[in-house]
Amino acid sequence: MSRAPRVVALGGGHGLAASLSALRHVTDQLTAVVTVADNGGSSGRLRRELGVLPPGDLRMALAALCRDDEWGRTWADVLQHRFRSNGELHDHAVGNLLIVALWELLGEAVDGLDWVGRLLGAEGRVLPMSAVPLDITARVLGLDPEHPELITEIRGQAEVASTEGHVVDVALDPADPPACPEALVAIAEADWVVVGPGSWFTSVIPNLLVPALCRGLEQTSARRLLTLNLGEQKGETDGFSPETHLEVLAGHAPDLRIDVVLADAGHVPDPESLRRTAESLGAELVIADIADEDRELHHAPDKLAKVYREIFLRP
Amino acid sequence: MSRAPRVVALGGGHGLAASLSALRHVTDQLTAVVTVADNGGSSGRLRRELGVLPPGDLRMALAALCRDDEWGRTWADVLQHRFRSNGELHDHAVGNLLIVALWELLGEAVDGLDWVGRLLGAEGRVLPMSAVPLDITARVLGLDPEHPELITEIRGQAEVASTEGHVVDVALDPADPPACPEALVAIAEADWVVVGPGSWFTSVIPNLLVPALCRGLEQTSARRLLTLNLGEQKGETDGFSPETHLEVLAGHAPDLRIDVVLADAGHVPDPESLRRTAESLGAELVIADIADEDRELHHAPDKLAKVYREIFLRP
Repeated sequence: MSRAPRVVALGGGHGLAASLSALRHVTDQLTAVVTVADNGGSSGRLRRELGVLPPGDLRMALAALCRDDEWGRTWADVLQHRFRSNGELHDHAVGNLLIVALWELLGEAVDGLDWVGRLLGAEGRVLPMSAVPLDITARVLGLDPEHPELITEIRGQAEVASTEGHVVDVALDPADPPACPEALVAIAEADWVVVGPGSWFTSVIPNLLVPALCRGLEQTSARRLLTLNLGEQKGETDGFSPETHLEVLAGHAPDLRIDVVLADAGHVPDPESLRRTAESLGAELVIADIADEDRELHHAPDKLAKVYREIFLRP
Repeated sequence: MSRAPRVVALGGGHGLAASLSALRHVTDQLTAVVTVADNGGSSGRLRRELGVLPPGDLRMALAALCRDDEWGRTWADVLQHRFRSNGELHDHAVGNLLIVALWELLGEAVDGLDWVGRLLGAEGRVLPMSAVPLDITARVLGLDPEHPELITEIRGQAEVASTEGHVVDVALDPADPPACPEALVAIAEADWVVVGPGSWFTSVIPNLLVPALCRGLEQTSARRLLTLNLGEQKGETDGFSPETHLEVLAGHAPDLRIDVVLADAGHVPDPESLRRTAESLGAELVIADIADEDRELHHAPDKLAKVYREIFLRP
């Protein structure tokens, strides 16, 4: 392909930020589609106080795309800055407040995010998966020590992320939120769609639970790449092998075909087993060195970029 | 003069914003020096919670200088936007939060304001009169109905602005704050210095109470123009004539010579008396049409601009 590939990255939180930090070096045709179900921290407070979308994951994605010069980096630092005090502003991220102000002023979620993107000179576009704030619910096993076989429903992204039980599956409330139209267009026109890494049940899978978004992912002519996490995440994916990650994702989107599953060479206990699981979803398994040597369980954006470039450019 | 005049405008609040809205059309060499003694509203809360300069008057001055295109006006609107809720963010102006974030990040007041100026494409520079948060104290007559001759000291810009007594004089606490060095340079290099309009005791006079700033104003080779308010202000200048405004200002800065006193044609009850008072300060009185016909007691920036231009260009 002679032009840069059109890439859509889906997810949320630090996983999506790592993915974007890599992809911005691979293409200048980049769109992020971000989970908007957060109910904790600064985002949760803004959502409750002002009735807006939780802005935190959107902010983090925008900051990851800031233009790499003094202007872009300074405004990204401002957006990521958090107030520290004993008072009412404590822990609010400045970018969350700025995004919400633009939403209130312009009355339109995508428009407000585009303005922040312009402020940052962002190299890519950041979209919410839905313009409606959502909640994640989860069916969880083992929360009742006397009846470990009982399934309990818990509610809230923060609560699911930190559950002490075993997450069976997650759902959205409302169950059929409207997808962001600009996200559907980006997916339909993409060459590659990248899912993960990220908090599996609370950042990655929620995108697949927006019905129109999942249909868009099933029907696009884009190729689909799934990047696995480097390990289990305390709380929501305690004890999950790479294979389990794939299986629960497939369980939430049974008709979604994956083309490539990408895993880190140092974090696949049984390559043959993972290859078989990937093949059962129609996917080729690519094992490469993509882990950050200095930060445990984090992907290294430069290594990810190199591998993404190789995969996208293969004939 | 063939180049644009270098102009420094001193004050705070809506008065300074009106002055800047006029002066930006007269010169592209414009510096605002802003009172930083506010202790009320969003600014007062930020000052108490985070130990920073009160940012509100600085924000308003910056917004008044925004570049006159979609970019500049949108970011000015964002800066001026206030959250409305039943919660902790209620009434905070977004620009106040942004300015404070830049201060926390960059560690330097002027640097942070310059960044916001660049964001807005501001046509001029906005400086605090001091990098130290200040309090205004006032000696007030008549607060005790049984002893109307007693003088009481009250404290705080908000309290002085709304006092039911008669303000005798004001002071700063600390009494000898350091002046902003960049403001001293701007005043020394100016062709014109514009003082007022604005809340007389809480926005205009405080600049003259910063010792180094007052000395700079006394010693500059710039000409000094004082623009009078259109009338008394409920609370701090109840019952004040134009002459009283001049007299109390002179009382706070006895060595400051004024070159031109500008007053609105419709708001001078006794022109001859005002002329005599102006002359006692060494000033020529200019009476012109500068009032906004639609907003009582507000100056019209376009009329002010016309008169400033005429005065600055006179031989």
